[in-house]
Amino acid sequence: MYPKSFQKLINHFASLPSVGPKMAERLVLYLFKQNLEKLESFAESLENLKTDIRYCKKCFNISEGDLCSVCANPSREKKIICVVEDPLDVIAIERTKRYSGIYHVLGGVLSPGQSSQNNLRFSELESRVKTDEIQEIILATNPTTEGDATALYIQRLLRPYEIKVTRLARGLSTGADLEHADELTLSSAIMNRK
Amino acid sequence: MYPKSFQKLINHFASLPSVGPKMAERLVLYLFKQNLEKLESFAESLENLKTDIRYCKKCFNISEGDLCSVCANPSREKKIICVVEDPLDVIAIERTKRYSGIYHVLGGVLSPGQSSQNNLRFSELESRVKTDEIQEIILATNPTTEGDATALYIQRLLRPYEIKVTRLARGLSTGADLEHADELTLSSAIMNRK
Repeated sequence: MYPKSFQKLINHFASLPSVGPKMAERLVLYLFKQNLEKLESFAESLENLKTDIRYCKKCFNISEGDLCSVCANPSREKKIICVVEDPLDVIAIERTKRYSGIYHVLGGVLSPGQSSQNNLRFSELESRVKTDEIQEIILATNPTTEGDATALYIQRLLRPYEIKVTRLARGLSTGADLEHADELTLSSAIMNRK
Repeated sequence: MYPKSFQKLINHFASLPSVGPKMAERLVLYLFKQNLEKLESFAESLENLKTDIRYCKKCFNISEGDLCSVCANPSREKKIICVVEDPLDVIAIERTKRYSGIYHVLGGVLSPGQSSQNNLRFSELESRVKTDEIQEIILATNPTTEGDATALYIQRLLRPYEIKVTRLARGLSTGADLEHADELTLSSAIMNRK
């Protein structure tokens, strides 16, 4: 019922995660009301995303050059690797300003029933451990079933190398209400008390 | 902290209504994982939005040609105009398949304190009434304070022309729970019972 080009753009938006068809309609109508320059700049950014940005050759973080800004930074501690699921996790940890090591971006997690293990960068992590004299691996996959399974998998993978392998602490969120904390979180908080 | 092109696209997404900065990050990361063709097709649709689509010269609905598909359809009843706020409302009414007249898209509603009245297509509506021998105007602005005020404004505007001016019925939504209906809706439903 929409003009074709309108519907095509709606479909593009509706294919994005957490954008439903109704929201896509509203977004496209909003964009239609914007001026042409804004749309052209938006389109240009989209087109350039793949060409301007690539994966860091070392850690697979998003990067403009061969090495990402973390790996290219000489003041970072190169003997500690923090293993995360995706580039957004790198940003989240960088925001804390409490970590001075480098990263390894897996590109996802192991999911039960899916043999997508091959796409995840486990072997790349292993070869970094082998060749780069790494002292500690911090497993910072999400505290979910899949994240835990992936952390466990890496722990086993790295057992032969006798390096320190740690996992991010589990406990109460700052500002959280004890009454509303789930059982698993609360029991981790009790067990890891200090 | 993100590479520049990445951040630029995040900003574009975050400028859209109901897309927050966190959601924008996730969308851009999702897009980065898609293949280049998909991104290029998305970008192309964005660029073509303004050039392929325009406003219908008669009713200001979105359109590929000078006239929208409704106005260009010879089997539509041209003596009845349904006045709506924006093109999404046209689609909503078309989906009911119960309306065979044509439309007039105002492009918004009167909002208190804002003198944006000039941008709304009131005078265009008036001249259609004057010249096109219109028999009935259905005021289908949203059942909100602003929508009601706009409907009232149009009613007054068209008083000199002695044509039938109606407003969409107010009542319970189909499938709604009487217990949870708000007072105004329920009282409309009682007063307009039939």
